[in-house]
Amino acid sequence: MNKVVEFMKAEKLKPKPDPTALQFGKHFTDHMFVLDYSQDRGWHSPRIAPYEPLTLDPASLVFHYGQAVFEGLKAYRSPDGRVLLFRPEQNVKRLNDTCKRMCIPPLDEEAVLEGLKQLIEIEQDWVPDQEGTALYIRPFIVATEPYLGVRPSNAYKFLIILSPVGAYYSSEQLSPVKIYVEDEYVRAAKGGVGHVKTSGNYAASLLAQKKAQELGYDQVLWLDAKEKKYVEEVGSMNIFFKINGEVITPELNGSILKGITRQSTLELLDHWGIPVREERVSMIDLYQAYQKGELEEVFGTGTAVVISPVGELNWNGRKMVINQFKTGELSYKIYDSITNIQYGKQHDPFGWTVEIN
Amino acid sequence: MNKVVEFMKAEKLKPKPDPTALQFGKHFTDHMFVLDYSQDRGWHSPRIAPYEPLTLDPASLVFHYGQAVFEGLKAYRSPDGRVLLFRPEQNVKRLNDTCKRMCIPPLDEEAVLEGLKQLIEIEQDWVPDQEGTALYIRPFIVATEPYLGVRPSNAYKFLIILSPVGAYYSSEQLSPVKIYVEDEYVRAAKGGVGHVKTSGNYAASLLAQKKAQELGYDQVLWLDAKEKKYVEEVGSMNIFFKINGEVITPELNGSILKGITRQSTLELLDHWGIPVREERVSMIDLYQAYQKGELEEVFGTGTAVVISPVGELNWNGRKMVINQFKTGELSYKIYDSITNIQYGKQHDPFGWTVEIN
Repeated sequence: MNKVVEFMKAEKLKPKPDPTALQFGKHFTDHMFVLDYSQDRGWHSPRIAPYEPLTLDPASLVFHYGQAVFEGLKAYRSPDGRVLLFRPEQNVKRLNDTCKRMCIPPLDEEAVLEGLKQLIEIEQDWVPDQEGTALYIRPFIVATEPYLGVRPSNAYKFLIILSPVGAYYSSEQLSPVKIYVEDEYVRAAKGGVGHVKTSGNYAASLLAQKKAQELGYDQVLWLDAKEKKYVEEVGSMNIFFKINGEVITPELNGSILKGITRQSTLELLDHWGIPVREERVSMIDLYQAYQKGELEEVFGTGTAVVISPVGELNWNGRKMVINQFKTGELSYKIYDSITNIQYGKQHDPFGWTVEIN
Repeated sequence: MNKVVEFMKAEKLKPKPDPTALQFGKHFTDHMFVLDYSQDRGWHSPRIAPYEPLTLDPASLVFHYGQAVFEGLKAYRSPDGRVLLFRPEQNVKRLNDTCKRMCIPPLDEEAVLEGLKQLIEIEQDWVPDQEGTALYIRPFIVATEPYLGVRPSNAYKFLIILSPVGAYYSSEQLSPVKIYVEDEYVRAAKGGVGHVKTSGNYAASLLAQKKAQELGYDQVLWLDAKEKKYVEEVGSMNIFFKINGEVITPELNGSILKGITRQSTLELLDHWGIPVREERVSMIDLYQAYQKGELEEVFGTGTAVVISPVGELNWNGRKMVINQFKTGELSYKIYDSITNIQYGKQHDPFGWTVEIN
């Protein structure tokens, strides 16, 4: 490996958590990747340093005006012990798209990928090997200039932190979720920032998520801000519908996140020759398809879950139970194929996986 | 004063900046107010501590999902040396409204007001006495739990930091600003979080502000997310129009911030017997009023500026020059009355001012 990044080794390494009882995003590894930005030096001083607290002035812009962006991906342990990343260049590219919208100076994508790979190599013992586990990777940028005026910061910190995470599903069986179609709160409007991964989108989603849970639902399905007629995304996943043999997902309209699992699902369906369309999806059309018995499968896509089958949709009290609350055949097939590629269990015809060594 | 709050004095006090050359939000005082939240203890340990960096785990939720809220107000030095706050209870109340929307546990409003007053008393030498200067007060809350799941944090920090700030206008004369009516980017939608002071709203506004500045304008006028026909607010101010002797301002519709200077302006106009209405304001109606010569004055209201006269509006290339780019009589009268009350220069018939000690 090309040692372009300075490595400051932690003095004491942490004990690793029990790999059979991992939670999501609770444990962090021994080291993190750090990169600083200043006006005169640009992005500079890439390094791998001990995982430690950030020391920031209370006036740092991130605390006040939310200039903070992030990505999420995973490193997987293959049965033969290799460590694999899944389309990491897509995450780095999307991070830069997010930076552009949020007025953060762009990163050198090659250098970030190189730093990421070096960090994973150093922390490779943290990639768990139990079924369904992985090492979650969280690149993020925060505005660090101490200043209270509303304008883009002149200083930033980019970090990558790592967290070993458990299987999302407790058994081999995917568990369908119950979804509440939200008609009061709105996630994002066209012209806003819903299409990029900035922190404020997630804070804005909390109250609707709380409401859905109080009503007995797992997640929220967001509708468009303008007419509250068209499907946007689910919680923090994209959503797909199988209607009468065809697959559709909402087109990227400026308020929907461009998910990498979404994109991979589209490419996989195309590879299999299954008809798939990106288009505007209205709730009324979905409901009519449901009434005609044509709404065959519904599933979310995202890095955490890969595929999350939807067992029920509640739209203004109209309950649609999908596929008798069982995981559909296609949902399972996509889940199986993507996870097999991610874990290096089957041939990757797309060149999606990147091996760390 | 009731010494309910623990005071840890800074070992060394900072030199105070030149009061004739103060910028906005660049210098901070010697101490800050701090309050912690944990699930088992609730909000606890109120204290006034030396101004110092925050030490936060890189996984702290504020860096990832933007659960951060704030307020802004000022302490004013009267000509006879007293220190006055302007309607601070309104800020604390709005902070709690913001907390509710952002799933942050509510604060004890009385205790926060008491902490704020004690902090200002301790830092009273930092309240500048030059014409137009003040001590800017920034209460804010950030989510501190180290966790990467999307849910409300179980730990928070509430702080109040202080910054001596200069006069917004360099002379006694208010300077009219040029405003670009934004028709591409959107600030907030109904059902979102635009009506509360959460950090993500401000990060989301940066790109449009940058665009306006590149086009030669000072600020952006935001339109509604749904139809882009109706006026919302300007930059981070509310907006008022004087049309044919009557004053109108957009009604609070769920996406506009409930400004305290806005509310004070409404109460002042009412007190003077000047007709004023809160209602939906369309751009086309404004433009027609302009063409008929009835758009007499336009001004923004906000804590930083108090009143900011608008000299020009550009709506899709249609330029409206207001009152020959001069500050209107009513704009000036409101500015004069509010600032005279804030600085204790005239009788306060409303009970808006709160004197420290």
